[in-house]
Amino acid sequence: MKNPQEIIHLMLSKDAFSNWLGIEVIEITEGKCTLACKVTESMLNGFDIAHGGISYSLSDSALAFAANSRGFKCVSIETSISHTRAAKLNDILTARCTELHRGRTTGIYQVIVSDQHNKTVSLFKGTVKILDEIW
Amino acid sequence: MKNPQEIIHLMLSKDAFSNWLGIEVIEITEGKCTLACKVTESMLNGFDIAHGGISYSLSDSALAFAANSRGFKCVSIETSISHTRAAKLNDILTARCTELHRGRTTGIYQVIVSDQHNKTVSLFKGTVKILDEIW
Amino acid sequence: MKNPQEIIHLMLSKDAFSNWLGIEVIEITEGKCTLACKVTESMLNGFDIAHGGISYSLSDSALAFAANSRGFKCVSIETSISHTRAAKLNDILTARCTELHRGRTTGIYQVIVSDQHNKTVSLFKGTVKILDEIW
Amino acid sequence: MKNPQEIIHLMLSKDAFSNWLGIEVIEITEGKCTLACKVTESMLNGFDIAHGGISYSLSDSALAFAANSRGFKCVSIETSISHTRAAKLNDILTARCTELHRGRTTGIYQVIVSDQHNKTVSLFKGTVKILDEIW
Repeated sequence: MKNPQEIIHLMLSKDAFSNWLGIEVIEITEGKCTLACKVTESMLNGFDIAHGGISYSLSDSALAFAANSRGFKCVSIETSISHTRAAKLNDILTARCTELHRGRTTGIYQVIVSDQHNKTVSLFKGTVKILDEIW
Repeated sequence: MKNPQEIIHLMLSKDAFSNWLGIEVIEITEGKCTLACKVTESMLNGFDIAHGGISYSLSDSALAFAANSRGFKCVSIETSISHTRAAKLNDILTARCTELHRGRTTGIYQVIVSDQHNKTVSLFKGTVKILDEIW
Repeated sequence: MKNPQEIIHLMLSKDAFSNWLGIEVIEITEGKCTLACKVTESMLNGFDIAHGGISYSLSDSALAFAANSRGFKCVSIETSISHTRAAKLNDILTARCTELHRGRTTGIYQVIVSDQHNKTVSLFKGTVKILDEIW
Repeated sequence: MKNPQEIIHLMLSKDAFSNWLGIEVIEITEGKCTLACKVTESMLNGFDIAHGGISYSLSDSALAFAANSRGFKCVSIETSISHTRAAKLNDILTARCTELHRGRTTGIYQVIVSDQHNKTVSLFKGTVKILDEIW
């Protein structure tokens, strides 16, 4: 079974969209990870703030990395996100994913995205199904 | 007050990320809209399927257009999505947004994303706050 | 394998809390069910309206019955509810549960609760895990 | 403006359903509260475990008390709950509600329900609208 770093390296190296987002891995341990990316012009919506899909996508990648880091392949079942603060051009978004629950067949994770002033941008909760397949 | 077509034209023309996604407006009426986009290489994740952020982003744009189409500015409070089927390269995703509830200060919308075979890719629910500001 | 009526009869007859709620089964077919109950004094909260837990509980029972009606035991993974209108003393609440998605291992259901004037009281979405065990 | 204890005393004393649940207030401060109740026979479902509506209702009361404790009346907009472990007859359920976000017009709260062995029974997230009305 691979370790968390190997698994996430494998996942991220082939993940075109996470790379388009400019995601960098800040920290990864079993069941936990921290990612960051910068808001670019292409990520803005018509209100000149980051499209809701940006912090969702960053959070969803954080969920995938944290859930898979334990060595078993996981797939997302249900996710929810509340956008609490607009992110603007050049803001640095940091997503911290923590494990709320790890059962035998499902796991629940929370991802908090904050900006460079440590203000909360979004709150995300994700439930994954844990497969029998190992990395 | 502008009509739905004018509002959505205004929103989409300045929405860089929705344009990056290649979103096309198929239909828009008050409280309802249908959008489509094609899954490109840049939208794939490490499993060679569309990143969960793609159908979320498409759904979130559909929510924004449908909610704002009634003439009052709306902001998203809480959204949730279940990914029921993987989307693959070159799949055409169609997002149909319908209004489940429109109160005085909040609205609730459902977005179903399906592929070109009419298979459901994701189920999304979004709650918006209706502001006093008109378009 | 038992039919939907037999399964729901079995579930409801031993379900003390659903009986406390006074739940009646209006209709049950595979993947679908309609339940009703009346708001009593004991169900009110400090604002003299039905406690949010009442329409949640009615919806959760509807989810359980609809999901289990297909013959395989199901357990709830994640549920969400939006309360759109207050229910008052003696209101008759009707919960209509429909299947949004039925995969091999998970199912997604929607429950709309309305009052006797056909006004929507709450919108519920529930995801279940489908077990290998048959009824 | 009343203090948290006064507000919660006022809310709970008239809340018939929370009293039916046997809810006791363990702790209440601004934006935070801890409640407890015991699983009785009437709260069980057909699987002889607490009905999902029980931990939802306990969590929803905790949300209401924590959100209203800051002195402004609040109403629930959207709530979600994941049931992670079955609660059984005579289990003591403790609900700890914390504030994830408090904006000008909306607040987001998390409620973790655990049993007497400190095992997590459910994870709840609730979003409220903050009204202009003071207690």
